[in-house]
Amino acid sequence: MRLLLISNSTNAGEGYLEHARNDIRDFLGGEVKKVLFVPYAAVSFSYDEYQEKVQKRFDEFNVKVDPLHKYDHKDKRKAVEDAEAIVVGGGNTFHLLKQLQQEKLIEVMRHAVLDGTPYIGWSAGSNVACPTICTTNDMPITEPDNFHALNLVRFQINPHYLDAHPQGHAGETREMRIKEFLVVNPYIYTVGLREGSMFKIENGQIQLLGGKKARIFKGDEEPRELAPGDDFDFLFE
Amino acid sequence: MRLLLISNSTNAGEGYLEHARNDIRDFLGGEVKKVLFVPYAAVSFSYDEYQEKVQKRFDEFNVKVDPLHKYDHKDKRKAVEDAEAIVVGGGNTFHLLKQLQQEKLIEVMRHAVLDGTPYIGWSAGSNVACPTICTTNDMPITEPDNFHALNLVRFQINPHYLDAHPQGHAGETREMRIKEFLVVNPYIYTVGLREGSMFKIENGQIQLLGGKKARIFKGDEEPRELAPGDDFDFLFE
Repeated sequence: MRLLLISNSTNAGEGYLEHARNDIRDFLGGEVKKVLFVPYAAVSFSYDEYQEKVQKRFDEFNVKVDPLHKYDHKDKRKAVEDAEAIVVGGGNTFHLLKQLQQEKLIEVMRHAVLDGTPYIGWSAGSNVACPTICTTNDMPITEPDNFHALNLVRFQINPHYLDAHPQGHAGETREMRIKEFLVVNPYIYTVGLREGSMFKIENGQIQLLGGKKARIFKGDEEPRELAPGDDFDFLFE
Repeated sequence: MRLLLISNSTNAGEGYLEHARNDIRDFLGGEVKKVLFVPYAAVSFSYDEYQEKVQKRFDEFNVKVDPLHKYDHKDKRKAVEDAEAIVVGGGNTFHLLKQLQQEKLIEVMRHAVLDGTPYIGWSAGSNVACPTICTTNDMPITEPDNFHALNLVRFQINPHYLDAHPQGHAGETREMRIKEFLVVNPYIYTVGLREGSMFKIENGQIQLLGGKKARIFKGDEEPRELAPGDDFDFLFE
């Protein structure tokens, strides 16, 4: 199984997918010529616009972005099965998961990736690689059938992990939100993946890329900060 | 129907429910001696602790806080039906709604309030007064049966509404999140209720209290800022 799970599409002040471009290029490795792109997290812009935005970046890699929404419903399963790689973009996680569930693509996508199809996701696309979407930051603007996602990894990712909290605001911090998740789900590792960070998983190994530390939460243990180069294999336990 | 829907329990730097105490006192009007308190939004602290914290504030009003979780399951419906007033505290909206659904209290609570039982909610307690919980800020740490809530009002509240956005962070702003909701639900008014604000609804009238403006969203209309004293009756349409 090969996964590239990216916290965010865009670092503040940078171009779209700019921070991750070298890692995406390396991950696709020159062999992949076309990726199946899942645009279903887009809500406030069209799937076509999303395809164009991603294609613009993937042009640098000479990779064609083939969007799932342009297939007839009856051909979508086969498109997933035949994909050279699957790329799932960010946006609203609830909207993304609902659409995948409605099109009955969860299991076929899961098995394609478990069987070796490389998977790249960012933001909501990283959330749906987890067992559930329970650690998304997104607003539940629409109701999926359930919260179960692709379950490609055993742990949960909180993308766009944020230490800062607006001054004078009394709403929960990100850490408080994750700690609530841990009370209800004490045995599941949750990783706060800061903007600019990503996990690369291949050959049964997991690496943190991007320069920043990740924050690891489990049950009522004190959260830990681990850096690129540290051992993250415990996340597979 | 009488509702007091408060954005937040605590303003930064103030005591618990301090900003709302005069409005709560006025709303209970000296006649209510005991309120049924719903602590189910609490996740990282116990229901007993929650009861104590609220009781401490309600001691000022000489009102007893009678917590729903202490009733035997078979007596809970009657506790709701017989309540002098219902008070629903903040915390995690998903946890709160799930518990109310599991105990099959949604309809009995809805009808008690429609029939005149005064209702006070803050944060998650204001979210569940709406048609759905689709405009909560909370993390979906647990999965309710569905997103349908008490539906006491026709509009949606986004509590803890926030204009600020952490510098250098690329995740969505609050307004962007609400605008995603509006794309999926173009006909539903959504109110960004800033911390320190609340709606009082009684005698078929709705008032904004607390000194700050509220931000009104609908479909692709330009959001509007309305102040205390302005006419909010359109929210009943």
